[in-house]
Amino acid sequence: MNVILAADIGGTSCKLGIFDEELNLIEKWEIPTDISEEGSHILADVHDSFRSKEESLNFKVEESLGAGLGMPGPVDFEKGILNGCINLNMKGKRSIATTFRELSGAATIVDNDANVAALGEQSRGAGHGHSEVVMITLGTGVGGGVISGGRLIHGTGGSGGEIGHITVDFDGRFQCNCGKKGCLETVASATGMVNLAGYHSDDYENSVLSAAVKEGTLTSKAIVDAAMTGDPLAEFVVEEAARYLAAAMSNISVITNPGYFIFGGGVSRAGRYLTDKIKKYYDTLIFPPAADDMEIAMAELGNDAGMYGAATLVKQYLIKK
Amino acid sequence: MNVILAADIGGTSCKLGIFDEELNLIEKWEIPTDISEEGSHILADVHDSFRSKEESLNFKVEESLGAGLGMPGPVDFEKGILNGCINLNMKGKRSIATTFRELSGAATIVDNDANVAALGEQSRGAGHGHSEVVMITLGTGVGGGVISGGRLIHGTGGSGGEIGHITVDFDGRFQCNCGKKGCLETVASATGMVNLAGYHSDDYENSVLSAAVKEGTLTSKAIVDAAMTGDPLAEFVVEEAARYLAAAMSNISVITNPGYFIFGGGVSRAGRYLTDKIKKYYDTLIFPPAADDMEIAMAELGNDAGMYGAATLVKQYLIKK
Repeated sequence: MNVILAADIGGTSCKLGIFDEELNLIEKWEIPTDISEEGSHILADVHDSFRSKEESLNFKVEESLGAGLGMPGPVDFEKGILNGCINLNMKGKRSIATTFRELSGAATIVDNDANVAALGEQSRGAGHGHSEVVMITLGTGVGGGVISGGRLIHGTGGSGGEIGHITVDFDGRFQCNCGKKGCLETVASATGMVNLAGYHSDDYENSVLSAAVKEGTLTSKAIVDAAMTGDPLAEFVVEEAARYLAAAMSNISVITNPGYFIFGGGVSRAGRYLTDKIKKYYDTLIFPPAADDMEIAMAELGNDAGMYGAATLVKQYLIKK
Repeated sequence: MNVILAADIGGTSCKLGIFDEELNLIEKWEIPTDISEEGSHILADVHDSFRSKEESLNFKVEESLGAGLGMPGPVDFEKGILNGCINLNMKGKRSIATTFRELSGAATIVDNDANVAALGEQSRGAGHGHSEVVMITLGTGVGGGVISGGRLIHGTGGSGGEIGHITVDFDGRFQCNCGKKGCLETVASATGMVNLAGYHSDDYENSVLSAAVKEGTLTSKAIVDAAMTGDPLAEFVVEEAARYLAAAMSNISVITNPGYFIFGGGVSRAGRYLTDKIKKYYDTLIFPPAADDMEIAMAELGNDAGMYGAATLVKQYLIKK
């Protein structure tokens, strides 16, 4: 049987899937990620786990159409190299594609986890296969993936789609992990909402969040919950985050002009409460000709998005037409 | 002989070129643009002019590899339709590709002038064929073209590359032609520099520009000239324009991560005086991993860029590999 092997490798677990040539899922399962000894067992474990399904699913790894791997760190897509990965306990550059191909005998393609998740949602999730899609993942940080002409944009050094680092706060109030200030991530992620609540808490002394702000125990979930019940500080923070997201989106819309913005990640569980606010600001910021044909959608594949995207990469790059 | 026909159609003149399959220019010339009767003669005039070269250059229009046309208005790239064009006196939608193909018998592809200029610079000018290039044209407005994987990004509705409409002035001080406020074009084009000088002139009463500001006769050229001789208002305006350009560029760099930003257009004649200032601000705003491998270059093809880009479109889309 002609199969595609796909793995979304995370710091805790690896999500594995076997797909047919049309990207239909045949079987999916998970294995724990062993990050001991600088993550040196991870690829072998993934390979062994694929092998364990050969008999029941009637395929051979080395005769597969290819393997797609998503990794939680910066990837040189052309070369298949992972450039350091804290979550996997890997230091320095690792030739992931070459190593996995040598282990398995299967052609291998590698990209970072935010990109494969975006591609998965584009091809098999909320993007409905539309060729122009941007995914924004609101978690601890803000991740992203930009798809144009049905393909991920990597750019010259792999920073394509790093939309958490679009500058939106020109006052540069909060330091970003990347080294600069003012990034979307510093005001619109879970961390960013907490930043904003702390910054503005003195203006809203009666907020239900005040104690948590002082104790340093505030979470984005508490902010969103309080906003929905009308707490003024919490409402202000969500409005601000939405305004910054809308600013970033309006800028993306005149660069790659996507037909879908797809929101994923923990913060996006605020759902329409958040996206309605985003849309309100977006409508005032958008270049009018780009306002048509744009939809905001919520991610549909959850934790499976990366696995679908890794399989899609194999179909796009490794299967000869 | 296998030739590519290319035309960059402007409001005053049309630049025509004949290229070989490798995009080497065989001959170029210009004809005036006749915008009478709603521009209805333009395509026929271009076609006749190509025909007039058939004998001397030994080709047949209908046996050519294709015709590429750049037009100064919004183009639906997939359908080859121009959607109204003030400069050509055309109203409503015009099926440019179909009309020219019927006239000439040659396969025809159409894009807007900013896009074809960007593609020309990417393929045969300052971009040196690099696959990731963004062109920024600083004229009356701010035009742009975004190239990724060697191809222009049009996006879902053709607003890809409309980088003059990136929001950078969140105070929204100046109205843009597009209907919204705060666009890059309102603060970094020739018009934008004049906007800024007017807005800040009261802060710099001894500026050599003061009289022209009051009379409404100020030009961007006068601003740049005065800045170079140390006039404080003029220097402030150029610094501000550079800072806004750098902000837009830093955002583009985490969306498509180009290897080259190419500057063209009249304002860019300020050359290194302007780009050194842009670079100063850019270095503080850029996502650090995207800072490597990025070059700022000045356009090299001048008014021929669009013609080269129109020819490149034919090579990319109409010639079977």
